[in-house]
Amino acid sequence: MTEDRVYNFSAGPSVLPEAVLQRARAEIMNYRGSGMSVMEMSHRSPVFSEIFSETKEKFRRMLRVPDSHEILFLQGGATLQFAAVPMNLLEGKTADYAVTGNFSGKAAKEAEKYGTVHIACSTEDCGHSRIPVQEELSLTPGAKYFYYCANNTIYGTEWQYVPETAAPLVCDMSSDILSRPVDVSRYGLIFAGAQKNMAPAGLTVVVVDKSLAGRELPFTPQVMSYREMIEHDSMLNTPPCWCIYMLSLVLDWLRERGGVEGMKELRRERAALVYGYLDESRLFRAHAQPGSRSEMNVTFRTGDPALDAEFVAFAAGRGLVNLKGHKVAGGMRASLYNAMPVEGAAELVKTLKEFEKNHV
Amino acid sequence: MTEDRVYNFSAGPSVLPEAVLQRARAEIMNYRGSGMSVMEMSHRSPVFSEIFSETKEKFRRMLRVPDSHEILFLQGGATLQFAAVPMNLLEGKTADYAVTGNFSGKAAKEAEKYGTVHIACSTEDCGHSRIPVQEELSLTPGAKYFYYCANNTIYGTEWQYVPETAAPLVCDMSSDILSRPVDVSRYGLIFAGAQKNMAPAGLTVVVVDKSLAGRELPFTPQVMSYREMIEHDSMLNTPPCWCIYMLSLVLDWLRERGGVEGMKELRRERAALVYGYLDESRLFRAHAQPGSRSEMNVTFRTGDPALDAEFVAFAAGRGLVNLKGHKVAGGMRASLYNAMPVEGAAELVKTLKEFEKNHV
Repeated sequence: MTEDRVYNFSAGPSVLPEAVLQRARAEIMNYRGSGMSVMEMSHRSPVFSEIFSETKEKFRRMLRVPDSHEILFLQGGATLQFAAVPMNLLEGKTADYAVTGNFSGKAAKEAEKYGTVHIACSTEDCGHSRIPVQEELSLTPGAKYFYYCANNTIYGTEWQYVPETAAPLVCDMSSDILSRPVDVSRYGLIFAGAQKNMAPAGLTVVVVDKSLAGRELPFTPQVMSYREMIEHDSMLNTPPCWCIYMLSLVLDWLRERGGVEGMKELRRERAALVYGYLDESRLFRAHAQPGSRSEMNVTFRTGDPALDAEFVAFAAGRGLVNLKGHKVAGGMRASLYNAMPVEGAAELVKTLKEFEKNHV
Repeated sequence: MTEDRVYNFSAGPSVLPEAVLQRARAEIMNYRGSGMSVMEMSHRSPVFSEIFSETKEKFRRMLRVPDSHEILFLQGGATLQFAAVPMNLLEGKTADYAVTGNFSGKAAKEAEKYGTVHIACSTEDCGHSRIPVQEELSLTPGAKYFYYCANNTIYGTEWQYVPETAAPLVCDMSSDILSRPVDVSRYGLIFAGAQKNMAPAGLTVVVVDKSLAGRELPFTPQVMSYREMIEHDSMLNTPPCWCIYMLSLVLDWLRERGGVEGMKELRRERAALVYGYLDESRLFRAHAQPGSRSEMNVTFRTGDPALDAEFVAFAAGRGLVNLKGHKVAGGMRASLYNAMPVEGAAELVKTLKEFEKNHV
């Protein structure tokens, strides 16, 4: 890190690549000779239209989104999608929800406003420390969709397989999108808030099978209708232009580093460093069970909340910040998104070791 | 203008103060010693919490928002509010809508999904070239609210008075908020997309009388419920952090220039320059009728679309850009928001004069 920056382990909004921020800085007053900032551009101007369509195209290439699926750049965060998904796809009927953490639980609760929610599985009894196996999933015949959250930011677990279901898959990929290849053709809908792995908060990317659009409930707000947003290429109203521009810069940065395949290697490398240490440690232990562990968010603890707090402060003193776990989970959490350098993970391990040496 | 920037007359997203962009540039890699960009900060971190609460407080002081009203920083744009307003306030009953332009028409249409819309007035027959007087408003006894759009960006008209109604006033102030003092206590709800007069696209400010919250329809998405957002101080989910930070910088800039009173003087000065010229011109004429004219968006034309296009290109060649009118109105439009320097308006008049000299 240069420019006196810290290692930022925040779960979201999160670290962005330093090179991306530097490029944004260079262009902030005058974008490539346009005489204005991207923040000042009409969303219908030729210069912004080019940014918009290029970003969409880069995203399509990066995640290999097939032509059957549309890419939407929306507002409202994943939380608005918790309502938009059932408003558009449920038709007042039944959907299956896998509840493996905080956000899938919230999504299931929100969906109850629009139809019948069947809980296909819940890992609440084990503190959401694992992902259920395929055989544990209770599937409703004729369900409109099967909903799950690919990576549980708070508990640090991640689906290592794609569920087999007759119903279309709907997946919240907010915290691991663009960190590994995805076979998009297997999904009816993927959505992700940008603020973890893609761009600043304020942009939500939705990838939707176009054949699923057009079934929205009559009271669906216009900007929440996938059909309307597909028809208007996300421009029914003003999109979050600056976040789309930042995503464009991030996608360039990802491409230079091998795209999602390159990111998959890096996430393995970072996570292996931290889990490898935790499994050997006499002071710290990982929360998530092997086989369910997230490579994006590593949750761990000493077992003593006071000692946890002491470690968080110790690390912050060394420029490793935002390691405190989410309030509903406690302990520590190290988020290792795409933009976290491997050196950040190595520095974390070094700091954990030193703390352990002083406390065991 | 410095840094090779143009005069940007875009109706939205729009010009931002140059000094604000410079400050954002200076802080973009490392916000005031935090070691990270505002774009990378957890919305729950102490440093961002301070930005958030200070921005809210600055906005409250700037617009003199009474304690009876809450200030919300939301996503989704004014268009999502077209649905949120009736979802929260209509209770399936009747509201009065003044249709004086494109966006109030859209708002009325969206509200039909949630109850009965009574058109209190429409200026469609005169091409939305004027604002109705109080006596023209047809008010429904017992209406849940009276809805209007303070400034019509596309047609260049602006309400010069606050309607007298028994029902609570709901006002879309997207294109003139913070440009003049407002007696907020007279309103049940004010909302505004940020991208015209406040900040980059992606933030919607809602000012709501707290006594009106809690009546939302059962299918209201959680993040669209004013009650829920009041309870969570806009933090039910991740807010558009960067836009909130930019608003904070804009509010500092406004305060240094006399706040909304200072802006009112400036808007008069800019608009007087342009309308003064147009009323004398033998080539150009203003679209909006005197008494209804917007000081934010000046719409005008030659009467000959080919000549209009020639002028737009002529002005662009001199660094005055985005003067083309909206497609539904035609002609030209000069948006003179808070961040447009008076010199920009003067430069526009100079350019109009020169073009006229060559064409009359």
